[in-house]
Amino acid sequence: MTLLPADLELSVQRALEEDIGSGDLSAALIAPTRQLRAHILAREPGVLCGRPYAEAVFRHCSPEIHCHWRVAEGMELAADTVLCELEGPAAPLLTAERTALNFLQLLSGTATRVRQHVRLLEGLPARLLDTRKTLPGLRLAQKYAVRMGGGHNHRLGLFDGILIKENHIAAMGGIGPALRAARALVPALTRIEIEVENLDQLEEALAERADMILLDNFSLADLRRAVELVQGRVPLEASGNLGLHNLREVAATGVDYLSVGSLTRDVQSLDLSLRYRD
Amino acid sequence: MTLLPADLELSVQRALEEDIGSGDLSAALIAPTRQLRAHILAREPGVLCGRPYAEAVFRHCSPEIHCHWRVAEGMELAADTVLCELEGPAAPLLTAERTALNFLQLLSGTATRVRQHVRLLEGLPARLLDTRKTLPGLRLAQKYAVRMGGGHNHRLGLFDGILIKENHIAAMGGIGPALRAARALVPALTRIEIEVENLDQLEEALAERADMILLDNFSLADLRRAVELVQGRVPLEASGNLGLHNLREVAATGVDYLSVGSLTRDVQSLDLSLRYRD
Amino acid sequence: MTLLPADLELSVQRALEEDIGSGDLSAALIAPTRQLRAHILAREPGVLCGRPYAEAVFRHCSPEIHCHWRVAEGMELAADTVLCELEGPAAPLLTAERTALNFLQLLSGTATRVRQHVRLLEGLPARLLDTRKTLPGLRLAQKYAVRMGGGHNHRLGLFDGILIKENHIAAMGGIGPALRAARALVPALTRIEIEVENLDQLEEALAERADMILLDNFSLADLRRAVELVQGRVPLEASGNLGLHNLREVAATGVDYLSVGSLTRDVQSLDLSLRYRD
Amino acid sequence: MTLLPADLELSVQRALEEDIGSGDLSAALIAPTRQLRAHILAREPGVLCGRPYAEAVFRHCSPEIHCHWRVAEGMELAADTVLCELEGPAAPLLTAERTALNFLQLLSGTATRVRQHVRLLEGLPARLLDTRKTLPGLRLAQKYAVRMGGGHNHRLGLFDGILIKENHIAAMGGIGPALRAARALVPALTRIEIEVENLDQLEEALAERADMILLDNFSLADLRRAVELVQGRVPLEASGNLGLHNLREVAATGVDYLSVGSLTRDVQSLDLSLRYRD
Amino acid sequence: MTLLPADLELSVQRALEEDIGSGDLSAALIAPTRQLRAHILAREPGVLCGRPYAEAVFRHCSPEIHCHWRVAEGMELAADTVLCELEGPAAPLLTAERTALNFLQLLSGTATRVRQHVRLLEGLPARLLDTRKTLPGLRLAQKYAVRMGGGHNHRLGLFDGILIKENHIAAMGGIGPALRAARALVPALTRIEIEVENLDQLEEALAERADMILLDNFSLADLRRAVELVQGRVPLEASGNLGLHNLREVAATGVDYLSVGSLTRDVQSLDLSLRYRD
Amino acid sequence: MTLLPADLELSVQRALEEDIGSGDLSAALIAPTRQLRAHILAREPGVLCGRPYAEAVFRHCSPEIHCHWRVAEGMELAADTVLCELEGPAAPLLTAERTALNFLQLLSGTATRVRQHVRLLEGLPARLLDTRKTLPGLRLAQKYAVRMGGGHNHRLGLFDGILIKENHIAAMGGIGPALRAARALVPALTRIEIEVENLDQLEEALAERADMILLDNFSLADLRRAVELVQGRVPLEASGNLGLHNLREVAATGVDYLSVGSLTRDVQSLDLSLRYRD
Repeated sequence: MTLLPADLELSVQRALEEDIGSGDLSAALIAPTRQLRAHILAREPGVLCGRPYAEAVFRHCSPEIHCHWRVAEGMELAADTVLCELEGPAAPLLTAERTALNFLQLLSGTATRVRQHVRLLEGLPARLLDTRKTLPGLRLAQKYAVRMGGGHNHRLGLFDGILIKENHIAAMGGIGPALRAARALVPALTRIEIEVENLDQLEEALAERADMILLDNFSLADLRRAVELVQGRVPLEASGNLGLHNLREVAATGVDYLSVGSLTRDVQSLDLSLRYRD
Repeated sequence: MTLLPADLELSVQRALEEDIGSGDLSAALIAPTRQLRAHILAREPGVLCGRPYAEAVFRHCSPEIHCHWRVAEGMELAADTVLCELEGPAAPLLTAERTALNFLQLLSGTATRVRQHVRLLEGLPARLLDTRKTLPGLRLAQKYAVRMGGGHNHRLGLFDGILIKENHIAAMGGIGPALRAARALVPALTRIEIEVENLDQLEEALAERADMILLDNFSLADLRRAVELVQGRVPLEASGNLGLHNLREVAATGVDYLSVGSLTRDVQSLDLSLRYRD
Repeated sequence: MTLLPADLELSVQRALEEDIGSGDLSAALIAPTRQLRAHILAREPGVLCGRPYAEAVFRHCSPEIHCHWRVAEGMELAADTVLCELEGPAAPLLTAERTALNFLQLLSGTATRVRQHVRLLEGLPARLLDTRKTLPGLRLAQKYAVRMGGGHNHRLGLFDGILIKENHIAAMGGIGPALRAARALVPALTRIEIEVENLDQLEEALAERADMILLDNFSLADLRRAVELVQGRVPLEASGNLGLHNLREVAATGVDYLSVGSLTRDVQSLDLSLRYRD
Repeated sequence: MTLLPADLELSVQRALEEDIGSGDLSAALIAPTRQLRAHILAREPGVLCGRPYAEAVFRHCSPEIHCHWRVAEGMELAADTVLCELEGPAAPLLTAERTALNFLQLLSGTATRVRQHVRLLEGLPARLLDTRKTLPGLRLAQKYAVRMGGGHNHRLGLFDGILIKENHIAAMGGIGPALRAARALVPALTRIEIEVENLDQLEEALAERADMILLDNFSLADLRRAVELVQGRVPLEASGNLGLHNLREVAATGVDYLSVGSLTRDVQSLDLSLRYRD
Repeated sequence: MTLLPADLELSVQRALEEDIGSGDLSAALIAPTRQLRAHILAREPGVLCGRPYAEAVFRHCSPEIHCHWRVAEGMELAADTVLCELEGPAAPLLTAERTALNFLQLLSGTATRVRQHVRLLEGLPARLLDTRKTLPGLRLAQKYAVRMGGGHNHRLGLFDGILIKENHIAAMGGIGPALRAARALVPALTRIEIEVENLDQLEEALAERADMILLDNFSLADLRRAVELVQGRVPLEASGNLGLHNLREVAATGVDYLSVGSLTRDVQSLDLSLRYRD
Repeated sequence: MTLLPADLELSVQRALEEDIGSGDLSAALIAPTRQLRAHILAREPGVLCGRPYAEAVFRHCSPEIHCHWRVAEGMELAADTVLCELEGPAAPLLTAERTALNFLQLLSGTATRVRQHVRLLEGLPARLLDTRKTLPGLRLAQKYAVRMGGGHNHRLGLFDGILIKENHIAAMGGIGPALRAARALVPALTRIEIEVENLDQLEEALAERADMILLDNFSLADLRRAVELVQGRVPLEASGNLGLHNLREVAATGVDYLSVGSLTRDVQSLDLSLRYRD
């Protein structure tokens, strides 16, 4: 039950193209018959993510590179764990090495960060959401890492969900007209969420039958009042400067979702290394 | 004298495509005649980078969005600085907003990190280099941010430079054969660098006329000896766990280049926000 | 408030490419300075749809072709109505003619068919939905024509909504597990619809909190019972052999949505002709 | 002796892309090991067309989907005929289902319509031709369906044949200059056809050595006179409001070709359904 | 009355991409405000061809480069003729220079070679044809240069004409079956040519109503007999080791077409140089 | 130790696309089960180059075409040598034939020309370089043929080396500023070459530490003086009207590199033919 990004092969191809360009000068030095064995090692603890990307990198470089994984996608690992063992022709393996590691260290880094946040929500029904604050061109890959880390996607982009913000509301002449216009336009299977700044707006959004409501920068007290007011009729999302320091406290108010921009906006790569064997 | 990445337009197009997908549902709610004014604000100090990317994002969404910059590319800015003022049709501006910010916050974040490292080298001849540890698909953009931050590119990829590593040396039967094979293959305007593990290898590389030598994980003492030995005949690069904590100390040994992987491997986005005006 | 398909320019480019191939032999006969005036005429009544496509075709062939529309997009028109007047260089106009007409006649044909169905729902709250039974490569264009005809989109594809069918339910071990698995996977702004075959399944789907329920091939009596049972808690969609002959009758049962495959599966082009003037 | 469209793989890829977009949410629910068996059934009589398209759809989704056809391409089939049996992994089969059917129902619908027209020409030498009135982006696929239905292609586009119309003649200063200009330009293996409005123009076109002549909207009497006049020196094509109601009558005049726009302009899909087995 | 290759823009884009790659390092040295004036000079006599290619190269690099041509496309020029004057921003002009010249020198070289052959046919009705022996990826550009040089295209590729060769005839069981099979398949506006090895085969091809006949490696005597035999009923093409040394002699036999592979297979570039002015 | 062009597959695909277009009409005549055997013959002596291209052409047309080479890439061959034997399905083999030959005859022609020049340098240390005067779109293929012929690449394009010419020097205010600006911009592994017109400029370039120096149109006497002056501190390249007539004489001056534009600017194809067997 894994949803792989539809652009996985394309992302891998582009990453290899930007590295190889007109041709890999160094791999051309290696005799085509030479074989290598290697393994990838994690030098710090974290959550493994990106196996399908690394596999695609190796496969693009040569179908003869074999990749034996020792850790499952999405699993936590200790420092100095061997993630996988590699075997195959030396030249394409040397070409693939850096790009495969670049995917693994980015996506594992993101999944690790997400897992740290999810841990804080243990025992509470609230779910962790990502945002559209992502690295350009890596949206679907990062959204996948969020799922592997235990978080949930909010929407993938502007096409599969609609979040009506302050500006839209002003442009449409109020919460009611904005929601009705949205309902007339968007596909039946797409939810309409609206952003509110205070409890009055929340009541209006509720009355106008929003499908989901984002509470922007609400105080803890107001979040609690909002939860009470809504009584589970629509899902509520809390947003605004959420992070490891306050996530559990905010979740305890009873909101359904918490969205955290830094999950995908910042990157602390997981420290990995590929080592060759004799 | 700026070298813009040749894939700038393509990167921008891809980033917009992944966000817009089959169509921006929310922008479709806005009347086509509605105009907006906005500005982009830095919420923390840093180095501005990514103007040409943001401009391309806006231009792709509508040629009628006007962008008046108040800070030059590569300049340092204080917290709460207005970076630029925007004016134009509301619908495409709302479509462009997130993608433009995603480029600016990533590239400014990278340029800022690079500048912090470059500051440590003030007064020394050593130059800061980047590596191939980059975000997949964003190589040229990040290399551009490195230059804007004051660093230098090592090479752009496997195609425009050759770094002969341990594995290549083993595969070719030694430093001499490896260097001669490389010289027979690579274009005349491409430099050949070789990685050495100790001073003996350094002497051999020197004798075999390498164009540049990477000293991998050398102690400070050995770096100093290497510099003495080489006497400026070829450029020397120090590499291995370099960072803000030891950069100046290593540079003081007299090596010509220092390469730091975390410059482009990790991302601490610069905190930016786009605000609309009445 | 129009949502143009994101692939509009691409569709137009492809259609021109398949017609022009290695070069338009006939247009090459015309002197570049020759100008033409023409108009497009509807030879039968219908709903106009496809203006942005026709405009893009002309613009791709020459920015100097001017197109003055006399009928608004989505408007009904009588037989022998002039849709637009054209003026510009003869050669690119002759190149563009057939492709522009091909888009207009297809999309107007679809919008006309949709409007005929929508008319039958007047005064009832039920909404007309399309399906994924579309012409390969023309999905978004046809979904746009559905909206212009007054219908609503169900979902654009497999990516922006989820409809759990019999097979998924069997594979997941029942309605409950299927809905829970879906909820764990899909983005927060995407609705989960489930297909049910009878009233028992409907009750189960309701209990398991489906976001929307498709009643497949229900009798009129069962549709009425379903509406009574659900009492507006979730939207209900009727599906299965719906058409002009029974649409109003089914809508009168009180279901929220009716989906009709033939809207986009069959094409009765609107009869248009482009005529040149002296 | 089959000419498959050169863009077949591309068409299939695009159709899958527009359906799958960022990822198939529903297929992601199915366990990767689950297998399915299914068959495709025709619910009405017709001519089968599109097998290579359906096969390509399945192959793109998974090379492990096996497709056992029971009816040959281009064959007529009765209602309730099983077209093929399918077997393979459930998830990619569910992803492929709709797109495969969309190709089969469109192309079989077109081939069926063509066959109905061809039947009317039995025993006569006249051949049925298609036109450039096609669905944008599906030109080559539809032209293939015309051949499978027993019709002939007129030309594939503006690049592989030249039909000089009224406008070109006016622009070139008459039939003679137009034909000479065309001959100077077009490749030696490309035929030049000219459209004439009456018998005088026909004689002129004949004298100027047109390769083929289109008789536009000629009366039956004039068609007979034209055939008599030309005496087989060049092929004659009748055009203008031809259809099932008058095709045989027009063919009986002795013209060589009859072109019918509705063959590819309108679509009555063949009613197909894919059913899963236990 | 010029047929520009439909892939012109694409060819230019690809040529620039392969030269610029990740970025033009040298142009990045030039201040963006610096302007340049230059002219392109022919250092030897020839026929100018490639203006639209050069213009597209300059336009792709900067819309501000102005190009004032002094010689018309397809015209003969003496040594030391200035072809055009250029003016615009220095950086993009330096980027464009080499690629623009590469197109001009190739296409002018080809047009010049073609003109030399065409000159030999003066006063005879025979026409010079090209072949499919072209530079990979440059087919349409070279076919255009052939037309500019005064030659004619045979066909553009395998798609817009059919030449039945020995192998096809053997595979189909003789000239008659091969021609009939071709006629059943190819579009009505595409001519069918058949290759014959001797006069007997010629008679058979004639009887079976080939549209055009290629006489492969016929002696002068046999060519004359063939012309006599055919009496203008179908066009005849002579082929096989034709060149400047024997072209007129062969043309004098009365054949309609002569095809010469070396026109597009070999390249003697026209010697051009771009010079900057103070 | 071969560096295959990274765009090999793409070049082959494009070449096939331009030949096949909407479909290969003649191959469609051949029964799919028919097999053929053939061989490729060189009709004149030369150097074989292009095997990987020909193989890719065949593989693209059908994976069942088998290609048994009898001559190694880069080897010299006599007239009437069989290069390879082919076996496989007739239809795709006939489709592939012309494109495969077009690559082989072009690249072998180039490698042959290069070899003729390299022979002249036997016993001297000087190396033969190519230039950027190449066939548009075939840069990397031609650069590969240069290497196979025994020559060396200068740079692949504007991205992997920098050659500062007169114009750049003028724009930057002299040799010193130009070199310093270049050094600040280009990656550490990219060499900076500067063009000088006389010995004074050479001394300045030397003083400013250019990485390589191009002596443009120097007399033999000046070349000798330059070599003496530089004493091996940087590589020297001679350029300007070099060819078979003067190459050895110029090389004898002691320069390190000689660049010859005609290697890749002009094409004398190697005469090859593909013959079918019974």
